[in-house]
Amino acid sequence: MALRFLLALSLLHSVWALWPIPATLSTGNTALVLSSNFYFDVAVQNAPADLHNAIQQAQYYLENDKLGRLVVGRGANDSTALTNAKSLPSLKLSLASGATANPIATESVKPLGTRSEEYVLTVPADGSPATLSANSTLGLYRGLTTFGQMWYYYGGKTYTLEAPISITDVPAYPYRGFGLDTSRNYFPVADLQRTLDAMSWVKINTFHWHITDSQSFPLEVAQFPQLAINGAYSADEVYSESDVQNLVQYAAERGIDVIMEIDTPGHTAIIGTTYPEYVACMDASPWLTYANEPPAGQLRFALPEVVNFTTALLSSVAKTLPSYYFSTGGDELNTNCYVNDTLTQQQLKSANTTLAGALATFTNSTHSALIAEGKTPVVWEEQVLVWNLTLSKETIIMIWISSEDAAAVANLGYRIVHAPSNYFYLDCGAGEWLGDDPTGNSWCDPFKTWSESYTFDPLANLTESQYSLVLGGEQILWAEQSGPENLDSIVWPRAASSAEIFWSAKQPSGAPLNVSEALPRLHDVRYRMVQRGLNPINLQPQWCALRPHACDLYA
Amino acid sequence: MALRFLLALSLLHSVWALWPIPATLSTGNTALVLSSNFYFDVAVQNAPADLHNAIQQAQYYLENDKLGRLVVGRGANDSTALTNAKSLPSLKLSLASGATANPIATESVKPLGTRSEEYVLTVPADGSPATLSANSTLGLYRGLTTFGQMWYYYGGKTYTLEAPISITDVPAYPYRGFGLDTSRNYFPVADLQRTLDAMSWVKINTFHWHITDSQSFPLEVAQFPQLAINGAYSADEVYSESDVQNLVQYAAERGIDVIMEIDTPGHTAIIGTTYPEYVACMDASPWLTYANEPPAGQLRFALPEVVNFTTALLSSVAKTLPSYYFSTGGDELNTNCYVNDTLTQQQLKSANTTLAGALATFTNSTHSALIAEGKTPVVWEEQVLVWNLTLSKETIIMIWISSEDAAAVANLGYRIVHAPSNYFYLDCGAGEWLGDDPTGNSWCDPFKTWSESYTFDPLANLTESQYSLVLGGEQILWAEQSGPENLDSIVWPRAASSAEIFWSAKQPSGAPLNVSEALPRLHDVRYRMVQRGLNPINLQPQWCALRPHACDLYA
Repeated sequence: MALRFLLALSLLHSVWALWPIPATLSTGNTALVLSSNFYFDVAVQNAPADLHNAIQQAQYYLENDKLGRLVVGRGANDSTALTNAKSLPSLKLSLASGATANPIATESVKPLGTRSEEYVLTVPADGSPATLSANSTLGLYRGLTTFGQMWYYYGGKTYTLEAPISITDVPAYPYRGFGLDTSRNYFPVADLQRTLDAMSWVKINTFHWHITDSQSFPLEVAQFPQLAINGAYSADEVYSESDVQNLVQYAAERGIDVIMEIDTPGHTAIIGTTYPEYVACMDASPWLTYANEPPAGQLRFALPEVVNFTTALLSSVAKTLPSYYFSTGGDELNTNCYVNDTLTQQQLKSANTTLAGALATFTNSTHSALIAEGKTPVVWEEQVLVWNLTLSKETIIMIWISSEDAAAVANLGYRIVHAPSNYFYLDCGAGEWLGDDPTGNSWCDPFKTWSESYTFDPLANLTESQYSLVLGGEQILWAEQSGPENLDSIVWPRAASSAEIFWSAKQPSGAPLNVSEALPRLHDVRYRMVQRGLNPINLQPQWCALRPHACDLYA
Repeated sequence: MALRFLLALSLLHSVWALWPIPATLSTGNTALVLSSNFYFDVAVQNAPADLHNAIQQAQYYLENDKLGRLVVGRGANDSTALTNAKSLPSLKLSLASGATANPIATESVKPLGTRSEEYVLTVPADGSPATLSANSTLGLYRGLTTFGQMWYYYGGKTYTLEAPISITDVPAYPYRGFGLDTSRNYFPVADLQRTLDAMSWVKINTFHWHITDSQSFPLEVAQFPQLAINGAYSADEVYSESDVQNLVQYAAERGIDVIMEIDTPGHTAIIGTTYPEYVACMDASPWLTYANEPPAGQLRFALPEVVNFTTALLSSVAKTLPSYYFSTGGDELNTNCYVNDTLTQQQLKSANTTLAGALATFTNSTHSALIAEGKTPVVWEEQVLVWNLTLSKETIIMIWISSEDAAAVANLGYRIVHAPSNYFYLDCGAGEWLGDDPTGNSWCDPFKTWSESYTFDPLANLTESQYSLVLGGEQILWAEQSGPENLDSIVWPRAASSAEIFWSAKQPSGAPLNVSEALPRLHDVRYRMVQRGLNPINLQPQWCALRPHACDLYA
């Protein structure tokens, strides 16, 4: 027992709140208090409005987080150390010479690989100002986020015990995402905004918005207004064009690019409520024969008019969005749906082609239109692994069926985003949702705990020459059993796992990430989220959260 | 498809919102609108204040639920039927002649088997007043709850399409509970109140409050104040004596008896922070050897001073509570803890007894004191199945390890409350919570869906002569991975499953309960809970909720 106590003490100073952990980090053990007159010194010429807003938000968190340190007593024992502590007067923000002070929102939506997210942050122990410098306003934004994770609160003082602090930080991967399905159940805009806030706190930079599916079409599209009128659950459950524009801007100001997905040609039954002639096997029964989920119904993608419609739909939406990326989906296409579909079979015959051939034509049309709009298409893995489509080598392939499939995609030379269900699906483990199946289970059982997700290796089974194909990854929530009621708790803090994997990849020491070191920091993330008004799950009893490693399996 | 459509229509009138479904029920197909001047006509002499409060609450729900009917259009197609519908002017409440109008709170805490929860409710179709009669104010309260589930809202009208309605209702079992652990993580009083509200909506009548455990002691006890001072997570995370009194009253006014559990002699490590001499293997390492969960530590129950302390503790708390029942716990006692505990071994030797003998003495002392206070003890199954204690035959035994254990307890002649982990534990399926175990899983995986819980048979494996031993059952949330942040979503609507099993047991037709019939009604419960401000999970995509049976596995 004595040994464990000493061990716990020695670990105290590695119980950093920083998440994702910076690329390089050095800390001391001097107490430092935030001055009651603390201010941000913006030494940035022509600083854009969204940088000022970000600073105001950072100031708000500093004043309102009031997070007690996660130790027994929540900081009561820190009082002595704080009595004679120096005060930090300010944080000076500056850009590297020659850097342009673009809006954060502009920097956030640049192409992957061209965004500058790195920053240098120092917090001296002697009461002199802290400094934050970067090559872009986006880098400053990331540094502000880190600065905001350093501070605890007790007895009227906001403080750290670990000054001086020196950080040089840069992400390991350019794509760090979170994916959300807003079709199976609808999420009001305010819930998405709150989620974007939380994403920004852990430096997630991509919101993969799976906005439509077979069950509902909550997206207002100017050129095709009936899709939402007939396809949304109600007039109140629609993302209007201005909602989308506002949300995309809200995201970009927080360092987040929004990649929208309109999944085609599967996952489209609801389009049949507006265009019945475009959808095969609409509401066919038993649905299990024709679809992965009820209701059945898929676009008749072999038909020229459906090719034209889908191309117009996707490009008309994509061109309203600032992102360079747009997902056309392409997963779980059910071939039974077309076997007895007269219109499809007639077309295949007259065009002397196969279903795969027609899919190639369809996808070529939608992708070409997107590329013409300056967009890079994103698709699910089946497009290249099942249908063997030949896509532009710029196309981004999302892995979902299994982490084992990444190597096959890399072997084809495509770029990869990891979203494997066996590590990253947040909806797994919630049991069967289909009716009349009480002994059924979640198809991707068990629940993916934060730590299971955290063991994911982005480079597993790849050759060194393929490493550069890995753009990053994301955790996703499919919403069959979710809605605004459980959004926070099913997503947080678990979605922070991939955020750290793809930002940090390694410990500052160069050692691999490991769950034992990470857990105390993730508790910190979680408890700070509560202070900021979120509803994340508890990872453990509070007894454990206050005693790092005491609840490890073999402690 | 046509067939399914017709089937769905024919089922519409069985898509009752009532949950639990009444013992007998007849409905018509006449539309009836709630009058804009609708009022409750309280024909009860000397009606107690809490009945008036309950009526006020019922009126509030009638005006504010505004639940759209769970069909496509959410009631838009009902307008025609409502145009010439009669209005319901009032609901007249009366007690059977000779019945005393006690406060609901008095009726709610009577001994099991002596409470009168039955009621008769009629809602005529012709515009004449509805009537509700019962033998007690508690019965009136149950009837009010049923009345509140009948109404949908569209276009300014609150209505039913199923008048006339006639109900004669009575619960199948006297104990219908929900259990909550408030030790692993703390739940503020407001969260418990909200939970009690929701429990009352589905006629749950027992709150099993597992208030303390090894991790924290959030209960203020006047005679032993240091237990909470040292054992609560913080001074803000304590249930004061007045909190408890207020909460017990709040519950009783809603038809709910609070059975508190102070688990002993295991699950008590935290008591060692105040009385180290009373606790063996305190914080021993590896905890896995000494306890089911960290931290290790159990009462030295063999010591006379510990027997006296525990007896004083339990009886001093129990006597402040109106319930006839009090749980002394008794689960998961770890014998390794005592093998090398000198004080225990010396005592066993000097008293010439065994651990089991000492446990019998300890339990006899705590139970005798409770019985002297007029309380009936409640314990977990190991007390009689593992330790073979001979307890008063009035003692209530809670089954938790497996539903298979009920028969063994019944064979011993004890009364049973079903809380089997394999059907009723709400925390199952959330993955491993212990640290440094990323491939670990939930010990009672998988997640218990509402429908899996719903298939529980209270009488399985029992002989007919044992049926009367079954008091009822409850779903429980153990809070290692829960807190106020996910309380609603992890509990609701799932905890309604056992509420219906133990109230209804059968369909009004006499047919067994079945998940296929139940799901549309449970959607209704869930969507109404949202209207009342709760955060229950979605059971399915809304597409399915609006189309009964369309998302059944083989639909």
